[in-house]
This record gives sequence, C-alpha cells and structure tokens, in this order.
Amino acid sequence: MTEKWIAGIDLGGTTTKLAFINENGDIVHKWEIDTDNSEKGKNILKNISDSIDQKLERLNKEKEILLGIGIGVPGAVDLKKGIIYEAVNLGWEDNLPVVQALGELTGLPVAIDNDANCAALGEMWKGAGQGAKDLLCVTLGTGVGGGVIVNKQIVHGVKGAAGEIGHITVIPENGSPCNCGKTGCLETVASATGISRIATENLHTYKNDSRMKDIFAKQGRLSAKDVFDCANENDQLAKKIVDQVAFYLGLTLANIGNSLNPEKIVIGGGVSKAGDTLLAPISSYFRKFAFSTVAQSTSLHLATLGNDAGVIGAAWLIKSK
Amino acid sequence: MTEKWIAGIDLGGTTTKLAFINENGDIVHKWEIDTDNSEKGKNILKNISDSIDQKLERLNKEKEILLGIGIGVPGAVDLKKGIIYEAVNLGWEDNLPVVQALGELTGLPVAIDNDANCAALGEMWKGAGQGAKDLLCVTLGTGVGGGVIVNKQIVHGVKGAAGEIGHITVIPENGSPCNCGKTGCLETVASATGISRIATENLHTYKNDSRMKDIFAKQGRLSAKDVFDCANENDQLAKKIVDQVAFYLGLTLANIGNSLNPEKIVIGGGVSKAGDTLLAPISSYFRKFAFSTVAQSTSLHLATLGNDAGVIGAAWLIKSK
Repeated sequence: MTEKWIAGIDLGGTTTKLAFINENGDIVHKWEIDTDNSEKGKNILKNISDSIDQKLERLNKEKEILLGIGIGVPGAVDLKKGIIYEAVNLGWEDNLPVVQALGELTGLPVAIDNDANCAALGEMWKGAGQGAKDLLCVTLGTGVGGGVIVNKQIVHGVKGAAGEIGHITVIPENGSPCNCGKTGCLETVASATGISRIATENLHTYKNDSRMKDIFAKQGRLSAKDVFDCANENDQLAKKIVDQVAFYLGLTLANIGNSLNPEKIVIGGGVSKAGDTLLAPISSYFRKFAFSTVAQSTSLHLATLGNDAGVIGAAWLIKSK
Repeated sequence: MTEKWIAGIDLGGTTTKLAFINENGDIVHKWEIDTDNSEKGKNILKNISDSIDQKLERLNKEKEILLGIGIGVPGAVDLKKGIIYEAVNLGWEDNLPVVQALGELTGLPVAIDNDANCAALGEMWKGAGQGAKDLLCVTLGTGVGGGVIVNKQIVHGVKGAAGEIGHITVIPENGSPCNCGKTGCLETVASATGISRIATENLHTYKNDSRMKDIFAKQGRLSAKDVFDCANENDQLAKKIVDQVAFYLGLTLANIGNSLNPEKIVIGGGVSKAGDTLLAPISSYFRKFAFSTVAQSTSLHLATLGNDAGVIGAAWLIKSK
C-alpha cells in the first residue's frame, strides 16, 4: 500500500509551521514560512497552498499523496462553519471561511481548530498524552492556553471558549490586570510574562540577598527562565516565587481535575522547559487540592513534542475524520 | 404503535424513587419504596424488581411494555463493568455488579450511572437544560454534587470522579474541614450544611441586630432556608451571607465555565429553592469572573424538575442507547 501523508499547519502570528505527517503521526518533512499579515492577511492561505505545492514538487511527490490539510489557527473557531470568529494577530477579517477558501485553493479536504487545541491533540496522539482518551493540556508561554479532550474529542463549548484555562480567576480580589480585561487570571501569575512580573515586583521588597537582584541590575529585567535557573541554584527568593507559581497552577489544575477527572494533564509551552523544578511542586499542590480519587487517578506530565505538537495535532484533525 | 415505557430508578440511602416514563420523557407513573439497607443491602435490587412487577400488575400491563431499566446510584460507577466502586450509604459491598444482577432479576436491559449524573441528564432531557448539548449541572443539597455533560454525554473521567464540583477548593488556606478529608471545599460554604454553619458562626461576631439572632435563640439552630428568608426580609447580616455564598458559587462556576464553555449551567437541589435571591447574585459574580466569551454565551438557570430529575435522567440512559 502506498504511504499517505497529511499536511499539518500551525498558523502563527509571525511564522507558519508546516509538516507532512504520515498516518502513524510521524513527521516526514517539516518547514516554516513567514506569515504575511499585510493587506488584512489576504495572502496567508495562498502562501500556504503554494508552499505545499513547491515542497511536493521538490520531493518529487504527486499531490495525491496528501489525504488532506489540518490547520491550527490562533483564534476561536466555529467548527461547523469552518471559520475563525476573530484572529487579531493575523489582521484577518472576522468570520473568514478558512476551510472553504483553503479547500478551493488546494483541492484537498481541510479541517480546522484552534492552535491550543491542536497542540493538545498532538500530545494526545504522539506525545505525553499518548493512550489517554480524556486529557487536559495546558500551555505556559507568553500567555496561558489550554485544550480539553474528552473521549478523544476536543471540547469546544457553545462559543469555542472551552479551554480558556489562562483566564480562570486565581486571585479574586486585587489581582493584576490581564490582557483579557479581567484581573487575577491564571495567566497573570503563571505565564512567562507573569512569572517575570512577580519576580521583579518581589525584588524591591525582598530584604535579603538574591542572585536575581544581580541579574536584574545587569540586564535591567528578569525572565521566567532566570527565575527557574536561580531556583535551581537554591536562591531562596527564586524558590519562593516558583512555589507561588506552582501553588496557583496546582490549585487550578486540581479544580479542573475535580470537574473532569482526566487520565492525564499535560503541561507544555516555553515555561514547562523548567522541567521538574516546576512539575514537582505543581504535582504536590495538585495532590493537596484535588479530590482524593482525582489525586490518585489523574497524573501530571510534561509535554514531549515541543513546537511540533501543533502540526501533529492539526494532522490528527484529518486522521480522525 | 404501542406506547413503550422505561423504568427510571433513583436509588437513595433511605428511599428509592421509581417511575415509568414514556419515550418523550414524561412520567406516566411514579412511586417510592424504602431502601432496605440491612444485610449489606442484599434485598435492594430484589425489592426494586418486585416493586416493578407489582406496579405493572396493578396497572394491568405486560412486562413487554418496558424497554429497560435505568438506575441512578449514590456512588462512583464503573460504566464498562456496570458496577458501583463503593456506595457507603447503602451498606453495599464494593464492586457490586448492579447491571448484571438487576438484569438477571428482571430480564430487562439495565443501564446505570451516578445519581448526580442522572439528575444532570434529566435536566438536559426535560428540564432547564433542554436543548443544550453541553451542560453543567450543580446540585446544592446537604452536600454539593455535579454532573458535566459534553455532547449530550456524561463526562465520567478516568475513575468516575468527574463532576466532583463540591470538592473544588475555594478557600485554599484555613478553610473549614470537608467530609472528603480536605479543607475549604465548595461544599463547606455552598451546601445547606455549609450555609447554616457560616450563618451561625457569623451570629456570634455580628454586633448589630439581626432577625437571624432571634431565630437562633428560639430554634437553637439556623437553616439555609432561614438565611434566605431573612435575606428576603432585607436582613443585613443574612444578605451579607447570601452574597458570600454567591461569590464562591459564581467564582467556581465561572472557572469551570472557562474550561468548558457549556451552553447552560443548571443549579438544582434544595438550596436552589431560594430562587432568584440566590441566582441573581451568583449570575452577577459569574459574569464578573468568567472570560468575556463565556460570560456572554454560557447562561445560568434554576433546575425545573425538582426530585423528578433523577428518575427522568435514569430513563434517559436507556432512551439514549
């Protein structure tokens, strides 16, 4: 039997990741192109279609090798209509009919979902969530995103806002402002930006020595990575901040765990590169705050696919059809 | 075509509710029997089977009118095996094969789920959640229970603990002890028991007059209903307590809402009889704490089926097969 591929696309605000993925979920080829946001993003889909054609030609493959195109997009999606409600980062007009337009450009079946949901599906198919039917995936990056999977299907909710874990309120009173317009969201304390902010604020009030003070004096800023590096060097203030971040994440994941009792919770995104320095205290708070059955049966894991999760999950959209 | 019925059973610790329900979800006949907990509950299923037979005989109907039996049970359920993990209130032994045993006794197809999940399905089929595919149901009674429905299916999770909303931690530090072994659970502040406790504690420290002080002096106790009644009479302390309860409920439902973005959230159980006195402030806090899309698209409702939700939802288990 001839091998078939799926094109997986992870459409980002500045870069679009593309990959050809076989039916086992293995990446056969992957590459990137710039995302052209000019003129309300009118070239974005054309560029994707052209890039796929060029790649196939270079590989000396016919278009027939492709079963379809799965695409993850940075915005809430109406699955039935195949449109993005809004994608501010792309400059796209609202309600753009992505599935129809990309289907006409390529002549291939197209499936779409939100990028955080695609990352969750990727981790389910080939990453840390492999084998789990019920899965929660949380992405700690510049912001905090999430994907909820029940019975191998992404939960979208009535208006595509399921999985907005970053905007769960963890500080109900006097929390910091969030980009979403609320205050005290998980994103304000557990994103890379949030961790950097908390660390910087604490520098000014902390009376003892801290390696973070030296770094801040030298760089003029503190990154989330600086905080974790210092914590690994046993810096007391850094350890206190990591503990605080882990408290909010462990509490939130336990509370979602009590609602869904997923088999696995997968933590990904740039911040998760902190590894066990972050996972261990999150797991500890998770077990403290979760209902006993949930604490025993839901397990926490670091994501394993890194930046490939999006394209692999996008391909799953076609594979699972 | 001959009308067909489904037997819906809501098995409680002291009373078992039974009903014959037609395929439209309307109750044709309903009745109750005592739950016999003696001898490790060995008579429970036999009593149910006998009671169904007697009722059919009295109605002059053949057993063939029944499509099957749906049963809601007070404990976590393993759906695949058709067993209850444990049902402390029934005195039943663990891992009892309910589906098989009741099937053999009656010769009918049997379907099982947890009682809170059946109540959620009932509200989805014929109650406040009618028409919604994605639904969250929260039951405020002696405890706080919940049922999560995604795509018309109950979410069970890996070990049946999905929907344990009552044990979401709302007071992470110095909360009151909960029956589950943790502290600061939603159940400690939003169940009938919790509301009564908070009110009583507040009496001692409140310096002004309150009608609740008079009631407590007369009765020696304060019920959740007393608190709502006093709030309706504009008692300031009672209003403060209702506001506090609504704060915790609105915050919790908003946070679950951000994970699932259900079409409807239905609030039932004895405490929900407070009606708009409770629903209005919950809705207000919900909109404050929910992500904007969720605040706009997820709506809150009072349950409408009362004690019938359980038997109707149990019948749905057969209807939906």
